[in-house]
Amino acid sequence: MLGLFQDKPDLIVHSRDPLNAEPPLARLRSRFLTDTADFYIRTHGNMPEPDAEKHRVTVKGDVARERTWTLRDLQGRFETRTVTAVMQCAGNRRADLQEVRATTGDPWAPGAIGNAEWIGASLADVLREADVRERPGLHVAFEALDIARNEGAKDAPYGASIPLEKAMSGEVILAWGMNGSSLRREHGAPLRIVVPGYAGVRSVKWVSAIRVQPKPSNAFQQRHDYLLFPPDMSPETQDPARGTAIYEMPLNSAICEPGPETTLPAGSTTVRGYAIATGRPIVRVDVSVNGGRDWQQATLEEKGDQPWSWTFWHIAVDLWKGEHELVVRAWDAAGQTQPSRPDDVWNFKGYLSAAWHRIRVRVD
Amino acid sequence: MLGLFQDKPDLIVHSRDPLNAEPPLARLRSRFLTDTADFYIRTHGNMPEPDAEKHRVTVKGDVARERTWTLRDLQGRFETRTVTAVMQCAGNRRADLQEVRATTGDPWAPGAIGNAEWIGASLADVLREADVRERPGLHVAFEALDIARNEGAKDAPYGASIPLEKAMSGEVILAWGMNGSSLRREHGAPLRIVVPGYAGVRSVKWVSAIRVQPKPSNAFQQRHDYLLFPPDMSPETQDPARGTAIYEMPLNSAICEPGPETTLPAGSTTVRGYAIATGRPIVRVDVSVNGGRDWQQATLEEKGDQPWSWTFWHIAVDLWKGEHELVVRAWDAAGQTQPSRPDDVWNFKGYLSAAWHRIRVRVD
Repeated sequence: MLGLFQDKPDLIVHSRDPLNAEPPLARLRSRFLTDTADFYIRTHGNMPEPDAEKHRVTVKGDVARERTWTLRDLQGRFETRTVTAVMQCAGNRRADLQEVRATTGDPWAPGAIGNAEWIGASLADVLREADVRERPGLHVAFEALDIARNEGAKDAPYGASIPLEKAMSGEVILAWGMNGSSLRREHGAPLRIVVPGYAGVRSVKWVSAIRVQPKPSNAFQQRHDYLLFPPDMSPETQDPARGTAIYEMPLNSAICEPGPETTLPAGSTTVRGYAIATGRPIVRVDVSVNGGRDWQQATLEEKGDQPWSWTFWHIAVDLWKGEHELVVRAWDAAGQTQPSRPDDVWNFKGYLSAAWHRIRVRVD
Repeated sequence: MLGLFQDKPDLIVHSRDPLNAEPPLARLRSRFLTDTADFYIRTHGNMPEPDAEKHRVTVKGDVARERTWTLRDLQGRFETRTVTAVMQCAGNRRADLQEVRATTGDPWAPGAIGNAEWIGASLADVLREADVRERPGLHVAFEALDIARNEGAKDAPYGASIPLEKAMSGEVILAWGMNGSSLRREHGAPLRIVVPGYAGVRSVKWVSAIRVQPKPSNAFQQRHDYLLFPPDMSPETQDPARGTAIYEMPLNSAICEPGPETTLPAGSTTVRGYAIATGRPIVRVDVSVNGGRDWQQATLEEKGDQPWSWTFWHIAVDLWKGEHELVVRAWDAAGQTQPSRPDDVWNFKGYLSAAWHRIRVRVD
């Protein structure tokens, strides 16, 4: 574990065991496709290292033909697909919520996100090869090799599920590669799931079984964790029946440069960041240098036909001597925008922190 | 015109010519399927009354076979489809924005919305019958019989367009009926377009031609009006290049009962309203009786398999003597919620007013 951490001297490590780490924002913003070495790492327990030659994944449950494949079987039998997609933790930007009131979970800055090229088989192809019975209301549960340490419950294999409809959409990948190379251990080698548009919790790493079933996964991550609770609910009063399972992620944006609390020279400063909306284009990004009183429109950088990627933006602003609050908010193609205050989205687990992103800078 | 208005003594009329009117909110909230007599009316000019036997609609442009049909032809040739869908004006709830600063347009309360059963042919079927050339990037423009009075421009036939991809989705209807009867004159008889999920401007009434073309409609409504502008833009500085055409509508919700400025008896009061998210389920509705400091969860009423309908909600709250600010906000399945303040979404045309809905009541 420590060895792995030492390979990444520049990540901000929130926890060493399990390893949870994110890149500094300027480096995150430096490339549209995030370097694998800069990709955030989120683990829930141990970090398995199965033999890539011997590891098998079984497709079972509500299928006519249960099938078991090795990585090599999959590579030989299925067309290789590449999907460029953002992966983001449901807790990305949690630190902003913790400034309102304490939450559970690590204090992620806006770096628990990355955009990568994922390489593998289409999960729809894999399920069809097992003669999946396509009926409304079914779920696809992923079972993993890692043993998650679950707060208030027994350690158990990590698991999560997605609706069968999403699994059959063609965009979900049973992935063996990332950014042109084999998956690295911390990203789920030799096989993981990648669910574009959904919170990272559903993109199960070290996957060993895929089960089609009438109900969502029975695993702790599905039933008790990764639920969006109302603001009045606390760790003591939490009731899973009053939470909503987190699948699609909300509209979000963040300032990556300059960093918070930076001291800048007077004059023109270029502000840079990202914006992301699930399944909808970003149509406008507004930046304010006075805490949200006035807004200017940032330039949206060209990203081509990349529906699951983020949108990079930048804008040159003039800053005079003194303290300034820089703010960003994004708008999607449905005219939807972000809430202004973290307090408006606070929940005790600190999920879906998607209010306007604000940083303070000082100009000398 | 006056005769028509006299048929609807209970609508709130913002303008008689063109006729723009909406129902009182308690009546709007009384039925999941809005009575046709209670459905908001939005017109941009005259109100044509073509002969239903002779009226024709032509499908032209980028199609292999230009076709012209009467209403009877359409009813004979195409399978009849029924889609239950909300129609809402892009200016619904504009009055809340006008409390921040003046905007152009009528001061719509939250009643410029309704949920109806629309009956007609699938636009996809109609376009296929004309051998439409399905290519990415095409648009379907609708030409209408009404002559719109356009602010700052010449009077011209009303027109608007949608992307071909949406037109071919199967959910867009070339409608001749509403709630089990023929369309009424004010709702576009004998034929109109109904685009579920999109702002009402795209659901063109009195449609006479449907043209598949490489660009959006050239009509005033498409190119100059119904654009979402940044907050710094004014009628004097407006630049269509900096506006975004309004298609899909954002997440929204409103309190329908009690009405604003109502005086209530102390004790339990039932608060009722609607919530709507384009293409996503509403998963939670929060109600506050103290201006948004504390929230309770409303009961979401059962609506069955109605992806394009609104969600009705209600909650019993205890109110003590004094003044109270009741607030509602909704959450969709992507964990997205509404901005808190109208100021956060203000634009000079007063579109997409989707901040938390607030009303003041007095308890004696």
